[in-house]
Amino acid sequence: MKIYVILPILKSVFFEEATKKEYDAAARQGTEIFVKSIRKGPESIESEYDAEMAAPWVLEEVVNAEKQGYDAAITACMCDTALYGARQIATIPIIGPCQASLAIASTISDRFSIVTIGPEGQKGGVALLEKNVKKYGFESKLVSVRSIDVAVLEIEKRREEVIEALASESRKAMEEGADTIILGCTGMIGMAEGLEKKLGIPVIDPTVASLKLAEILVDMKLTQSKIYYPKPARKRIEI
Amino acid sequence: MKIYVILPILKSVFFEEATKKEYDAAARQGTEIFVKSIRKGPESIESEYDAEMAAPWVLEEVVNAEKQGYDAAITACMCDTALYGARQIATIPIIGPCQASLAIASTISDRFSIVTIGPEGQKGGVALLEKNVKKYGFESKLVSVRSIDVAVLEIEKRREEVIEALASESRKAMEEGADTIILGCTGMIGMAEGLEKKLGIPVIDPTVASLKLAEILVDMKLTQSKIYYPKPARKRIEI
Amino acid sequence: MKIYVILPILKSVFFEEATKKEYDAAARQGTEIFVKSIRKGPESIESEYDAEMAAPWVLEEVVNAEKQGYDAAITACMCDTALYGARQIATIPIIGPCQASLAIASTISDRFSIVTIGPEGQKGGVALLEKNVKKYGFESKLVSVRSIDVAVLEIEKRREEVIEALASESRKAMEEGADTIILGCTGMIGMAEGLEKKLGIPVIDPTVASLKLAEILVDMKLTQSKIYYPKPARKRIEI
Amino acid sequence: MKIYVILPILKSVFFEEATKKEYDAAARQGTEIFVKSIRKGPESIESEYDAEMAAPWVLEEVVNAEKQGYDAAITACMCDTALYGARQIATIPIIGPCQASLAIASTISDRFSIVTIGPEGQKGGVALLEKNVKKYGFESKLVSVRSIDVAVLEIEKRREEVIEALASESRKAMEEGADTIILGCTGMIGMAEGLEKKLGIPVIDPTVASLKLAEILVDMKLTQSKIYYPKPARKRIEI
Amino acid sequence: MKIYVILPILKSVFFEEATKKEYDAAARQGTEIFVKSIRKGPESIESEYDAEMAAPWVLEEVVNAEKQGYDAAITACMCDTALYGARQIATIPIIGPCQASLAIASTISDRFSIVTIGPEGQKGGVALLEKNVKKYGFESKLVSVRSIDVAVLEIEKRREEVIEALASESRKAMEEGADTIILGCTGMIGMAEGLEKKLGIPVIDPTVASLKLAEILVDMKLTQSKIYYPKPARKRIEI
Amino acid sequence: MKIYVILPILKSVFFEEATKKEYDAAARQGTEIFVKSIRKGPESIESEYDAEMAAPWVLEEVVNAEKQGYDAAITACMCDTALYGARQIATIPIIGPCQASLAIASTISDRFSIVTIGPEGQKGGVALLEKNVKKYGFESKLVSVRSIDVAVLEIEKRREEVIEALASESRKAMEEGADTIILGCTGMIGMAEGLEKKLGIPVIDPTVASLKLAEILVDMKLTQSKIYYPKPARKRIEI
Repeated sequence: MKIYVILPILKSVFFEEATKKEYDAAARQGTEIFVKSIRKGPESIESEYDAEMAAPWVLEEVVNAEKQGYDAAITACMCDTALYGARQIATIPIIGPCQASLAIASTISDRFSIVTIGPEGQKGGVALLEKNVKKYGFESKLVSVRSIDVAVLEIEKRREEVIEALASESRKAMEEGADTIILGCTGMIGMAEGLEKKLGIPVIDPTVASLKLAEILVDMKLTQSKIYYPKPARKRIEI
Repeated sequence: MKIYVILPILKSVFFEEATKKEYDAAARQGTEIFVKSIRKGPESIESEYDAEMAAPWVLEEVVNAEKQGYDAAITACMCDTALYGARQIATIPIIGPCQASLAIASTISDRFSIVTIGPEGQKGGVALLEKNVKKYGFESKLVSVRSIDVAVLEIEKRREEVIEALASESRKAMEEGADTIILGCTGMIGMAEGLEKKLGIPVIDPTVASLKLAEILVDMKLTQSKIYYPKPARKRIEI
Repeated sequence: MKIYVILPILKSVFFEEATKKEYDAAARQGTEIFVKSIRKGPESIESEYDAEMAAPWVLEEVVNAEKQGYDAAITACMCDTALYGARQIATIPIIGPCQASLAIASTISDRFSIVTIGPEGQKGGVALLEKNVKKYGFESKLVSVRSIDVAVLEIEKRREEVIEALASESRKAMEEGADTIILGCTGMIGMAEGLEKKLGIPVIDPTVASLKLAEILVDMKLTQSKIYYPKPARKRIEI
Repeated sequence: MKIYVILPILKSVFFEEATKKEYDAAARQGTEIFVKSIRKGPESIESEYDAEMAAPWVLEEVVNAEKQGYDAAITACMCDTALYGARQIATIPIIGPCQASLAIASTISDRFSIVTIGPEGQKGGVALLEKNVKKYGFESKLVSVRSIDVAVLEIEKRREEVIEALASESRKAMEEGADTIILGCTGMIGMAEGLEKKLGIPVIDPTVASLKLAEILVDMKLTQSKIYYPKPARKRIEI
Repeated sequence: MKIYVILPILKSVFFEEATKKEYDAAARQGTEIFVKSIRKGPESIESEYDAEMAAPWVLEEVVNAEKQGYDAAITACMCDTALYGARQIATIPIIGPCQASLAIASTISDRFSIVTIGPEGQKGGVALLEKNVKKYGFESKLVSVRSIDVAVLEIEKRREEVIEALASESRKAMEEGADTIILGCTGMIGMAEGLEKKLGIPVIDPTVASLKLAEILVDMKLTQSKIYYPKPARKRIEI
Repeated sequence: MKIYVILPILKSVFFEEATKKEYDAAARQGTEIFVKSIRKGPESIESEYDAEMAAPWVLEEVVNAEKQGYDAAITACMCDTALYGARQIATIPIIGPCQASLAIASTISDRFSIVTIGPEGQKGGVALLEKNVKKYGFESKLVSVRSIDVAVLEIEKRREEVIEALASESRKAMEEGADTIILGCTGMIGMAEGLEKKLGIPVIDPTVASLKLAEILVDMKLTQSKIYYPKPARKRIEI
């Protein structure tokens, strides 16, 4: 099967390659991954503003994914930007890493926390994730959304520090009652396994979660219903 | 006070004038209205897809509103597109007609319905409004979202028919238990009063609701908190 | 427009004048305020018991308000005593400061706290406000109800101390996640602005909120529906 | 044990005797019933307005009940008027028939309906009961509140007709999914058993429920906690 | 009336006698108690696993209870194991101590905590009770479920220590806002009264709660409706 | 990977073979299926009673699954019997078809219905599924649980009739607003695809859903956290 991964940020060779590599590593045999950045939009997403600024070009890529015969598309960011609009214009399943992580987490845990990034005084990412959790109906299982003081574009440079900070915030979440952690940013590439060892509880990587859900939706030939995600009426749109 | 009304659709002289006229009629003495269409985006909004396609240019106008010294900005569509991102980049209050209508309705009623438009087989508008109601936390007071079989761009041409259809759907909502009706589209200009007379129960016009809320937020010097709507980090964004 | 403000306590020249002054200060041009204490009842309201002891005479004043041609009536206490009964007997809108504050807060914030008064060991006010928040359906946005150790009748005498205590409790609420504060007692006259400066986040004054909501409901010709607030059947009642 | 039953209406020999008789019939050996109407207030309760007009004199009787050494007090009306204030001033348990019926119903059923009275166009009673159900936290188990077209003061005169109408509305509730019926008015004296036979499902009589709950709270020496129902501060109150 | 108490553990003379003694002490005049352990299953219940391992033999005793003409049956464990299945096969009321305690608590308190047992690292009992609270719909009134570090079979041996630990955890619950405590294990025989004195707030003993509820359901001739608890179809079952 | 499928009913060659065949058909390359009936218990599951009667022997097989080195275990019935206990004793992931179907459905739909079996007057299966939906936290997305008048053991014999009845009930669910259908019985083998064609909306087969979820949990090395699913204390248990 062929999965189209939309990276909802301006083209960055580093992020495209790292994302491709991580999806390839998680793909089962026979799953082909194509990663595509968006034509316009922000260089990273850390707030609702950034997510909304990316929306039209994510939708543009959704159209490309379907035209080119892909079996499913993933919007590779925990913001799940433009998810509902994407489901309206597409007949292939559209997967958001946040929703995928929450749905999978709900099958092993009743009390999970999300640990995300967010530079000091920037709780926009926390607010965005809290709203997503409520939008998808998992608020009764959410213990907390916590964040570490790092910007998305610095995650890779400050890798060791990030892992340490994630462990520290995760332990605070465990004291609050969480028994499972969801990584709150798809930029935390390859960190889940090490964190799981440090903590001794399950850690969910949203990148992997989005791909695994995509694979089984394709297996099951399931996609969003056209009753509540009807194709939008044709009209003049300029972007 | 000066209110900046963002019409989140491609420029249409008719809609700009009609919107200006309706806001002027509802404005109290001393309130100046400026209506501005967006530079790019869709010609009308009837689905989540359309709303998301308008987002960056709505946010662009929010920046303009604040720079030009306006006291508040309104995104003139029941989709409340880009509302949270707008609140992050602005320090002036940003008002969405859907949220404004729901908050005001909640002070006079515990059981309201929304009646919106939606061409046959196009329940995208209904789904969008149901999601907005849940997002704003009013689902326990919502009796139903119902729709009439008309496209936004035809409302004006089929005015009598629209009013008749609104009355008919509103009566069905009343049978379901609704005691108050919220018009589900800001394009239903000047229809609330007539409908109220036909039905004998309160009818809320989202255009008027958004302006009235804007006026009192300015009066009260209230605006979104910068804790949960922090200014996004500066970064490269192309639109 | 003419607004009838019912002070649901035994006549006190000090409170009548202070209340009148605060409403006048908040009124827009053309809004006339009439403040009336109740004929019988308690000298202050700090518990559900006090609020219930005031109910019949609040309702008596609601009748007076409507008979005398007022456009709206406000029950000037965060307990919103007799609000639903008042809406049944009146055709003019009846506004409760608690509900008004919550509805307005919900348009700028998803996480607010209320800070109220309550002498040591007297959490009756906290319980009352928690119940009101649930009754109006805003519990998912409430972070906490906190209280300071002062009785209503001492607020004015211990003004500086009250403001300091409010700031202190508000900061605890902010640590819990609140980004907006609602003053929990209409007796905290003229304290919102100073507190807002100390805290750096929005502070909502319930007196002002109730008046602003009253003004726009009158503007919009909105009032409670007679379906769910039907006029009570006539019967013998002695008070 | 001695139970003080407060009939929250103006003295009526008929209602006092009928209420006494019904409570006596339901009392277990050793339970003594004293029924007392209120000194002022309405002659019947069919709306939130009526209930609020009765509040101070219900509270007056609560004080009498405790002073005279009763073990518990019941406010004999499905409105549960002044329940929370009563719990604040008393140390003996205060029972509301509505809350008692709901709590007992919840132990045998997950889907119950309430069938109450309400003259044509008078849905005030329905609204009041819906609010009570939500206040006590049982909304997820409530299928519906339905009403029959009769005024409280006519129940006795039109007894056969009332029973027939109750059966008819109960059957509609059963079609909606209800498997248990709660009688919505304490004036429906002695009707539960006959209705149960007609319907073949459990029917809960609020009078009996309130007494049975009172008896076991006294047995268990349980009463409202003084933490959330603290004794109100002493102050001047005139009624 | 005759109540059949099913002790859902392997026969233990100590527990049978202690349970019989406690139920006898709580029984009103005329209530006869019969205590019966199950034929197979676990020697104590401290987790969902233990509770599920007891289910068939609890159901076996439910059949015996009904055949032998008992008026009601109680499953004497806070796990309420097999409660819904028991209600399907029986026409007499089946009472679970957890549901009984919660329903009674809800009539005197809006903020209660449960304090249960659970050896270190064994939060299975806490999880089980949290799920029960949600299943019965009382989660909005639950402040917390806390546990002390003791196994069920050691309660009796370490009696003083248990009471001290219960008091300590209850005080933490009170700091969290609880105004009423529910004992989380039916093995905490005879501890409620002493604890109540130490804490100064109501403490509910689930054993007593289950019996008192059983007595009044029998008084009221109430039992689960056969609509939602229909008799299971006959079929081959081997245990 | 190796998946252990526990058929929670007495051995039936027909059901074992049919179940094996359906799981094999849904398995991806490399997934081996082992189907095992339980040693004791009921011959079919149509009620909470039946499900509880199967619990100990399901748990017995869970132990076998882990001992024999299987990667995951599935309890092949929509009742998800003994799911939480199974998660306590196992370190491999335990999957319930009901929870799996709901979690997957939630990623493509906000409004789904379940259509299950249930002989006339036997709504025990409906009640069981409604409780499961609530237990897993998906009640806000559930439109309805509907049932057809067939017993589990007759499904295969009356195959055409069953499919027709499923289509008919599903269409009623669609009229209520459902946009996706979940089959409510794992005995409805191989019916999803045909039904999907008749209805034109997604239909989820719980057998396939359980296997697909099992496969990705194993891929992701995810399993229930030992914090909230701690290993039960060792004790004497007889079955």
